[in-house]
Amino acid sequence: MIFTTLLREDAEGYAETAARMEERAATFPGYLGLDGARGPDGVGVTCSYWRTREDFERWRDDPEHVAARERGRRDWYAWYELRFARVERSARWTRAGGVEAT
Amino acid sequence: MIFTTLLREDAEGYAETAARMEERAATFPGYLGLDGARGPDGVGVTCSYWRTREDFERWRDDPEHVAARERGRRDWYAWYELRFARVERSARWTRAGGVEAT
Repeated sequence: MIFTTLLREDAEGYAETAARMEERAATFPGYLGLDGARGPDGVGVTCSYWRTREDFERWRDDPEHVAARERGRRDWYAWYELRFARVERSARWTRAGGVEAT
Repeated sequence: MIFTTLLREDAEGYAETAARMEERAATFPGYLGLDGARGPDGVGVTCSYWRTREDFERWRDDPEHVAARERGRRDWYAWYELRFARVERSARWTRAGGVEAT
């Protein structure tokens, strides 16, 4: 799941909830990891990876996560975009090891 | 394509090349857009969207892009990860318009 967001300038409480959601997602079955970054312009891109669509949907429907999303729409986001995408190939490059499929 | 990177601290010339590549990608057929962010820890997530896999592969194989990637491995990145993913559903939320499929 690719989640692109623009935070409002007055997004009070956002960082705590984002950290809490990241921690909580990691306790769900099928969670594979998360990559995220937010730049100085307030735009953030967060990708969370799940073994199956059902695993992702269990997290999507988690009541604490649903409540956080509702708060996000009310208090934190100017806009957001969601893209549900199926990873077909992946690779990692490191200075030491070169490119390897993952 | 999801591109997650960690920049080295001495990544001189990176920003200019990244901006140039973003500009150049947009001239390729099938380019749909790009989302990117880099946080203060140096981790960045960039997603570029393409109509078809072939469109993406034309960009991947562009000689100027290939040269920029080589420079990236030599001078800029501590590591990177690539994920090729097929977008199956997407939606956008705005304060004014609510959620809409895209």
